[in-house]
Formats: sequence, C-alpha cells, structure tokens
Amino acid sequence: MPPQPETPAPEALSRPRVADLDALLGRPFAVLDDGFVRVVDYMGDDAAVVQAARVSYGRGTKRVSDDRGLIRYLMRHRHTTPFEMCELKLHVRVPMDAWRQWIRHRTASVNEYSTRYSIAIDAAQRTAPDAWRLQAAGNRQGSEGVLAPDQGGKISRQEGELQDHARNVYRDRLERGVAREQARKDLPLSTYTEAYWKIDLHNLLHFLALRMDAHAQQEIRSYATVIGEEIVARWVPLTWEAFLDHRRGSLVLSRIEAEVVAALGRGGEEGQQQARLVAEAAGWLADGPRGLKRNRERQECEAKLARLNLPVPWAAR
Amino acid sequence: MPPQPETPAPEALSRPRVADLDALLGRPFAVLDDGFVRVVDYMGDDAAVVQAARVSYGRGTKRVSDDRGLIRYLMRHRHTTPFEMCELKLHVRVPMDAWRQWIRHRTASVNEYSTRYSIAIDAAQRTAPDAWRLQAAGNRQGSEGVLAPDQGGKISRQEGELQDHARNVYRDRLERGVAREQARKDLPLSTYTEAYWKIDLHNLLHFLALRMDAHAQQEIRSYATVIGEEIVARWVPLTWEAFLDHRRGSLVLSRIEAEVVAALGRGGEEGQQQARLVAEAAGWLADGPRGLKRNRERQECEAKLARLNLPVPWAAR
Amino acid sequence: MPPQPETPAPEALSRPRVADLDALLGRPFAVLDDGFVRVVDYMGDDAAVVQAARVSYGRGTKRVSDDRGLIRYLMRHRHTTPFEMCELKLHVRVPMDAWRQWIRHRTASVNEYSTRYSIAIDAAQRTAPDAWRLQAAGNRQGSEGVLAPDQGGKISRQEGELQDHARNVYRDRLERGVAREQARKDLPLSTYTEAYWKIDLHNLLHFLALRMDAHAQQEIRSYATVIGEEIVARWVPLTWEAFLDHRRGSLVLSRIEAEVVAALGRGGEEGQQQARLVAEAAGWLADGPRGLKRNRERQECEAKLARLNLPVPWAAR
Amino acid sequence: MPPQPETPAPEALSRPRVADLDALLGRPFAVLDDGFVRVVDYMGDDAAVVQAARVSYGRGTKRVSDDRGLIRYLMRHRHTTPFEMCELKLHVRVPMDAWRQWIRHRTASVNEYSTRYSIAIDAAQRTAPDAWRLQAAGNRQGSEGVLAPDQGGKISRQEGELQDHARNVYRDRLERGVAREQARKDLPLSTYTEAYWKIDLHNLLHFLALRMDAHAQQEIRSYATVIGEEIVARWVPLTWEAFLDHRRGSLVLSRIEAEVVAALGRGGEEGQQQARLVAEAAGWLADGPRGLKRNRERQECEAKLARLNLPVPWAAR
Repeated sequence: MPPQPETPAPEALSRPRVADLDALLGRPFAVLDDGFVRVVDYMGDDAAVVQAARVSYGRGTKRVSDDRGLIRYLMRHRHTTPFEMCELKLHVRVPMDAWRQWIRHRTASVNEYSTRYSIAIDAAQRTAPDAWRLQAAGNRQGSEGVLAPDQGGKISRQEGELQDHARNVYRDRLERGVAREQARKDLPLSTYTEAYWKIDLHNLLHFLALRMDAHAQQEIRSYATVIGEEIVARWVPLTWEAFLDHRRGSLVLSRIEAEVVAALGRGGEEGQQQARLVAEAAGWLADGPRGLKRNRERQECEAKLARLNLPVPWAAR
Repeated sequence: MPPQPETPAPEALSRPRVADLDALLGRPFAVLDDGFVRVVDYMGDDAAVVQAARVSYGRGTKRVSDDRGLIRYLMRHRHTTPFEMCELKLHVRVPMDAWRQWIRHRTASVNEYSTRYSIAIDAAQRTAPDAWRLQAAGNRQGSEGVLAPDQGGKISRQEGELQDHARNVYRDRLERGVAREQARKDLPLSTYTEAYWKIDLHNLLHFLALRMDAHAQQEIRSYATVIGEEIVARWVPLTWEAFLDHRRGSLVLSRIEAEVVAALGRGGEEGQQQARLVAEAAGWLADGPRGLKRNRERQECEAKLARLNLPVPWAAR
Repeated sequence: MPPQPETPAPEALSRPRVADLDALLGRPFAVLDDGFVRVVDYMGDDAAVVQAARVSYGRGTKRVSDDRGLIRYLMRHRHTTPFEMCELKLHVRVPMDAWRQWIRHRTASVNEYSTRYSIAIDAAQRTAPDAWRLQAAGNRQGSEGVLAPDQGGKISRQEGELQDHARNVYRDRLERGVAREQARKDLPLSTYTEAYWKIDLHNLLHFLALRMDAHAQQEIRSYATVIGEEIVARWVPLTWEAFLDHRRGSLVLSRIEAEVVAALGRGGEEGQQQARLVAEAAGWLADGPRGLKRNRERQECEAKLARLNLPVPWAAR
Repeated sequence: MPPQPETPAPEALSRPRVADLDALLGRPFAVLDDGFVRVVDYMGDDAAVVQAARVSYGRGTKRVSDDRGLIRYLMRHRHTTPFEMCELKLHVRVPMDAWRQWIRHRTASVNEYSTRYSIAIDAAQRTAPDAWRLQAAGNRQGSEGVLAPDQGGKISRQEGELQDHARNVYRDRLERGVAREQARKDLPLSTYTEAYWKIDLHNLLHFLALRMDAHAQQEIRSYATVIGEEIVARWVPLTWEAFLDHRRGSLVLSRIEAEVVAALGRGGEEGQQQARLVAEAAGWLADGPRGLKRNRERQECEAKLARLNLPVPWAAR
C-alpha cells in the first residue's frame, strides 16, 4: 500500500507574508496624470500555490518537483485552481473610460466609489499635447503614431475647456439642489473613479494577459503593466516568471500553422511544396486582384513564421 | 422498492415556445427618450422550471404539486437552480450612466457596442425641464420631488449645450484623425450605448428585485420595470406571479423585529411591555437630545409595524 | 462644494490580523468520526468590510454610523459586495457524500485531493448504532428520530463489513496494477476526501445560511456549524452577529402573509374576517375531504403565525 | 461622419433553429454501459455568435468578413463573449465518479437527481473484463494498456459482487426505515446519477477542450466526445471547425520553445548551436547520472520538435 497523504505540519499553516509586498503596502503607484494603484491586502504567495497543488496531487509530488518546477508545470498545463488560492486586493483610481473596460472582467469583487452617494471625484484625466494617438489604418480598434504637436496643443486646450464646462454644469446642478445621482449624468468619461478591487491570482493573470497585451488600449495597459511588473512580480516571483514564459511570451500555432511548420521542418523544396499544399487546402492561397487575396489567417501565419525565422513558402511563387 | 425515475417521454422534449413572447420578438419597447429593450431570443418557460425541479426531486413530486404550486414552493424556499434553466437574451440601448450600474451584475453575458471599433452612438439622454429630481433630505443616495419648472428649463438648456459641445469636440477629434478609442474619452455619461445582454431567469429575477426596487435610480428602474412587466410577465407568468408574492411583495422581519411582533401578538399592556424590553435589549431605546436617539434599525422596524397595522410600543412612552 | 473623499492614511492599510483567529490557525476542529475543518489563511476582518463600504459610500458614512451599525445596515439591505472583501481558506476532510453537496456551491475555489493521482484516503465515515435516522413522514427529503438500538447495531455492523469489502476490492485492484483512476470506481460515498476550500465572506455566509439550516442534511450541517460558530464568529464577530439577527433568525412574510398579519393587526373580529378574505383570495381555504384541503403555503403561514403569537384566523371556522 | 450602427432588421430576430439539432432533440446518445446524453433545448447557432460579435464591432465588420472568417477570428483571438450568446441544455446520466469531475466546472447550471428526495438510481457502471486499465508508469494520473483477460474477468466478477452487496445493504436500510439521505451513504461511486446540465457555448468548449483531451479520464472523455462530435458539431458547425483548428489541434510554444524553434529556423550548425544556448540558459541541459538530467519542460519541448519535424539540437551532443 503506497503511503497515505499526511497532514501538513502545523508550522506550514502560519499565514504567509511576502516582505517585498509588505514594504509597499498602501503606497500608491502613480498611473496616468492623476490615477494610482495600491495594494490594500493580499492572501497567499508562491508557496500557497504549491501547497494547494500538493493537496490535489498528493505527497508524491513532493519528491519529483521543486516549487519552481511545479509552478511552471501548473502554468504550462493550465492547472488553474492552485492559482486561485492567492488573492490580491487593490485600491485603484482610474478614469471611468478605462474602468468601463476593467469592470468587464466579471470574476473580481468590486466596491466602487458611489457618485449617487457622494460628490463625484473632482478630477478628469487630461491628455497632453503630444499624447493624442492617431487612428490605426490597418486595425479598426487600434492606434498608431501621434498627432502633430500644434494640433495636439489645440485639442488639449479644447479638452480642458470641455472638462471645465462639464464640471461647472455639474456644480451648478448641485447648487440648485439636483440629486447627485442625476447631476452626474453629463460628466465626461474621463472623470476619475475609485474602487477596491479584489481578485484571485488566476483571474488576475488572465486580466493581465489581456490588458498588458499590445492590443489593449494604452490607458488600461498602463494600469495592467504597473500591477504586473510592480506588484505581482514582487508578490509571487515564481508565478510571474512562469506567466512570462508560458503565457505572455508564448506562441500559439493553430492546427494549420503547425502543419505548415512541420512541412517546412522536413526541409528542402519538398517541404516548401508540402507547406503550400497545406495552405492551399486551408483556402489561404486564393488569387486576388493583386497577388494573393487578402486573408487574415494567412497573414497571421506569416508573422509567426517570421518570428520563427522560417521562410514563407508561398512568398516565392 | 419504490418506483424508479422514468425517462420523460420524447414529446416532453420538444423546444418550448411561448406564443406571447414570440409575438413581441425583436419589437423594441421604448425606454427613456431614446433607449429601448427588445427580446432577441429565449430558452425555456415555466414548464422548463418545473421539468428541472422534477429531475431533482424525482417523480414523486408529480403527484403532490401542480406546476404553479411547485414554482411557488421553489421561489419561497429559494431553490434557485431550476430557475437557472431558463435564459433570456435582450438587445438594449441604455445611457452609459445607467449601464455602469447594470453591468455590475456579473452573472450575465454581455456584448457591448465598441466605441474603440466604431463611432460612438450619436445620441445622449436628455432630461426634460420637469424631470430634474431634487436631492433627498433623509437619504443620501436618493431623490425626492423635482426642480421648479423655470429652473428645470434652464438646466435642460444648459444640458443641451454641454452635450452639443462634447459631441462637437468628439467630431473634431475624429476629423483630425484621433483614434476612436481616445477621441471618445470626454463623451458625457449620458451617451447611449447598446448591448446584447443574456442572463438566466434566476439571476434576472435578482437583477429585477434590486433594480425595480424603490431605492434603485429612476433611470435603471425604468428599464427593469419594462423587462419585468412587459417581458418576464409574458414569458413565465407563473414564475412572475410567484416572484411578486414571494420576493417583490415580501416583508423580512429580523430576529429582533420578529420578537417585537411576537410580543405584541400576545396582546395587552403586557405584550407592549415585553416588546419594549426586546427593543431595549437591542439598544434601540437610548435617549437622545430630543426623545429617542436616532436609530435606523428601530426606524425601519417602526415602518414595518405600520405596514402590519401594529402599534409602535415605544411611541406611547 | 462638499468635501472630497480623502485617501485613507497609510496606517489604515496595514494587513488586518485577527488575534482570535490567528490563535487557531492550522488547528483542526474534529467533525464526524474522522473529518475536520481547519483555517489555513484568511484576508480581512470586520474593519475591512467597513473600509470597502466607505469607499462606496464616501466619507459621509463616517460621521453617521459606527462600524457595527454600518455592518448591520449592509447585512439588512443585502449590500453584499463589502462582504466579498474578506476571504477564508479552509482545509477540510469530508465524506464524499457530504462533499457532493458542498461542491454545489460554485462560488468557491477548490483544490481537492486527487484519487487519480494518489491512493484514496483510507477512511470511510462510519455511523454509530444509535445514529441511524428514520425517514421523515411529512418531508420527503428529511429525517426524524433514530432506529431502535438493536437494529442500529445490526446496520452498523453491516456497514463495517461493506466498507471493508469495498476497501479490500480497491486494494486488490491496485495490487494487480489497475490504474488508480479506475480502481477507485466502487469506493463507497462514505469515503473521506480532503480539499482546500477558499471562499469570500459573502458567499460563505450564503453557504452557512443554507447548510446550517434545519433542512440541511445533518452531516454537512455539522461542518457548517463548526465553520460558523467556531471560525466565522471569531473571525468577524460583528458580521456574525448581524448574520444571526438579519439572516439566520429572520422571518420572511410573503405578500399574502404580510396581508394576513396586517389584517390581524387591526384586531377584533373584523381583522380576523379580513384575514380570512385574504386567505380565501389566495386559494388557501378550499375544502378537502377532511376540513381544509392540504395547502403547503397556508401551512407555512400557520407556522409563522404561531411564532408571532398570532391566531390562525381560519382555525375557528 | 462614418455611418451609425443600424438596428438589425426585424427578420434577423426570429428565433434561430438548427434543423440538424432539432432532429435529435430528446434522443439519447448511449455512453458507457448505461449512461446517456441528450439535448433538451438550445439557444442560438453560429449566426447568433456572429450577430453578437457584430454588435460589439459595429457594422464595419459586415463588409470585411464572412461568418466563417469572423468566427475563426473570434476563436483564434479568444474573443470569448460572442460564444457565450449560445446555450445548450443536456440531460445526462453519468456514474457519480465521472460526475464528480464534471461538476468541477463551475460555470454551468445544474439540477441533479436527488437521492435525499428519491431512491437512488438502480444502476452502477460495470467494467467489462477487457476494460481494466493499468496504471501508467510515466504518468501518475494516467493509465496505459489493460489487464490480462483472465485477471480482468476475476475483477469484473468481484465488482459485480461488491455492487450487489452495496445495493442489498442500501435496500435493507430503506426497508428498515432509514432515511434515504443516510441510507445512500455507502453506495459505490459507480452508481449512476442524472442531471440537467445547462452551459453556454464558450464554457462548453472549455469543458470539451479539457475533457476530450488525451489526459482526461476515459469515462468522462467518452461523454465529452459524444457531446462534441455528435451534438456541438451539428449545432454550430462553423464554431466546431474553428475549435478543432484553433484549440484542439493547436500547439503552444512557450517563450523558450519559440526561441529554440527560431534558432533552428536559421538553419545550419549555427542555428543548432544557438538553440543549445537557449536551452542551456533555461537550465535544461544540466547533467544527470545518465546523460541529461530529467527535465519535464525539456522533454515536452522535444515532443513538440518531433511534431514539427525539427531536430532536437541537444540530442547530438
């Protein structure tokens, strides 16, 4: 009979503390012009992830893996429940526009500052003259480059006037006795709000994977980057390293892309030929008015081949 | 051996349809000045609630309860899972200010119109001169009464100017090539957004209980009322009736309040005396500068006693 | 302009500790014959609930309510999000039969001991001769009274034999090399499992409200009672008190029941008469073969009237 | 000003029906010896995914992508919310052992047959003599190969006796009047249970990705495979195809693995040399007693290189 799981020794159950995180408890990290993020409380650490995984997998785990290896294994194979055993509570100050995106993550607990109950925070996020981003040409939801400084200056002044106008209207309503819940209705989305936001480590990493991504809007990305690099990296360094290697820095090949790479892996013209057959079967090589017809899936494959230093087998045609 | 559960007959498994709801599928119900709610799709009906409950409780249930009785029983005793077996999908158009409250219900699925991807909807909710509510005196987050018409007229004009200003700034930014994701940042909270919103019946009823309540803000209450009275009432009439009787119209007595009522139930001066002892033990009868010290819990009890036509036993002191 | 929310002083952000809970960290509370519950970690305390509520409600709250009053207010009015700001992590050992009920609460994080990965825990919950409960007559899912001791003794011996039989079969399979994931398939539901279980305070109280209830099965009730009375009561004493007064000890009157009580509140024969009319309109007073036809809703109302020392107005007919 | 989103035409809002799924509504698919899966109801189809995505992305989407392309894009980039707009309700019959794994997916709605309320289903899953799987040597939680037929026969007989024994004990308890909730406590995990299980398409695909996987236990894999291949493939064929290409058949390269492949992509000895440096920096090439020290991350990389027809650059050393 193999050995039974043994009850962890009592000393294993003292509350974990992370000195590096304790050192910055309550200290605000500035984000944007008037926002911040700060740690209010936390539960668990890297060892708590390991502890929970070992309940699941039994004591056998102890022999074969050190903590770092186990955490990397869990991350790689998406064994997510041990990461749920850690919890982080933040106090954040964010423009409502970014908060609208933030709050779409439904797995967190939230207590937001109420503008029904209290006067709205008297600050709106202002954009500097050199920070007005241009609409991206190729990506309908992105931006690239910035507006010329003289135009940026005009727009920034215009913004200041609009925000002042909106704030004056808000104050005027309050002075006339309009209910706070209604007076606020025309405040700009740039108005700051504050919230306590509490989330477990698994769901936090999911939030960071999406919101630190290059496709995320710059404003929320600023917050996510601070949370990731300043807070999570200190709190659970082994988990953070595993996250960078196995989520942030990973490359996903679709079935078709993997077949293209596998064909190229054979080498030579035969490999290239076979890769083209794979692409053709996937409908990637239809003719358009100027060369190959636009196909987003093929284009994404080409970008991955470039990252892997592999040739695009249909380029030479 | 008692009889085994039997597999429901195949005819029980055709997709339920609710003719009253089919009749209004896709038809928008107008809410506020430019908002709407309309049903896109639904799953299940009253019978689907019953069907699921009977899987749980076995066939024995069949004999003792008709559908209405079973649904009322489930509602009364908060057996919530059978209500999760029905699902409703709405298309809504809502001012962002109300949507900010709406989206706090985390148990729904949401696809919202993206102002990163597309131009913001060109409409903001405007408040009529006679609809500016005054701040409630006794309730920090409520409103009561409305502003005098002349002042209301001024504020409404002021609102129109502010909304036009904000829209012009938005258009100007877009024309200069500013990215949509950034151009939108100073739009007023009154700007309309649209979304597909899908939720199960249990969580929908929870949403309605909170948002049809007298304490909910009037704007979101308008939406909740339409969803409840126009849609849910037609879709699942037995569930709706049970909801009205056992949730909306119910009265919760705390342990202390129940003891007060039970003391009064004994009747006579002795009952009154005992009720006062209960209140005293609860710390409700401390003296203040003018009579009893303000105590919210006692005041709420007094309101409930009034609803129950019972005397306030400490009033006579 | 009313005062703006102020950033809490840094000292407000040190990690809260609850000495009474720290004292029992890791100490198992025995439950059933071989189960336990013990605290592994926690986040927050009563003050953390208050702190989060004050973010929502703004600093104004500070003046009008002390912590206890605010917590009771939040509990009474089901403002649940501040309670989500506290988190508890337990290590539990539970028979699989009770665990099947436990795990139905979907809002917790769980890492369970894996019998795919490791040998099943070598213990099954045994029932003592005097602890075999009889099927309740009136309640299909309940129990009442216990089996006579001589019969109980027989059944307990029978159980021991069955559990030994099952364990021997399990061992035999393992010795023949059968995979653990399959060898376990005929283990009895009484077999113990272990898990780390982490849940926020709001969802924990919901769990306790259901599982400490008289209708919950005795086995899981034993666990819930220990968690509530031994752990939560020490961890967040103000929240626990509010929970007992406003949830556990509360009495819900349906719309119809409230109307019955309000009619009785008028007093006299007229009140009784009116109460009967309410009941009649609700369909409660239909005639059956022997007196009033059985009606569960009416019977529940009668039980509530008894608790409130109020007469049953249709009893006298 | 770019065009505004237009309200979908009313005909777009009739309830979608999928003829292929309607044809099998209520028809049980047999799984294991006495289990089944059958469709009770569904909401939405491939077009409903597209419809929701187009609310998010605005009408612009219409021009650039056909439905198939859009669905593949959403799947590839993990835009998951449009897939939440479809819902499936199943009636399943599953051994409790597999159900214990099934129920760990917390995002579904469940109504399970109650053995507190009703007599337990009189069937337990029996394993055929040729179906006893052996413990995997290299994988603590897996199986490989089967027991020799003569031994399998013995074990299957043994199982029959144990299941009969347990059922007799159960019956005996019921006959003596023991409460159903307690009588069931020693039923084997192989006992069948039934449930209504309702889940949205996004979470269903997550369930299928995990439970159709080669690492999932064979029993639950049988159910997942039927749900995927018989039901989802008919219900939402475009989504299913995208799932197979972008989830099931995809290959994830970690940051380190991508660097190894990119080094190899340069070709020649130099590429091999660089790939070894990457592996060395990752700590993969430490010496063990017999060649390289065992390292799970490196071994997984080697398996991926094999799938991609790429050489293992450290093999030749």
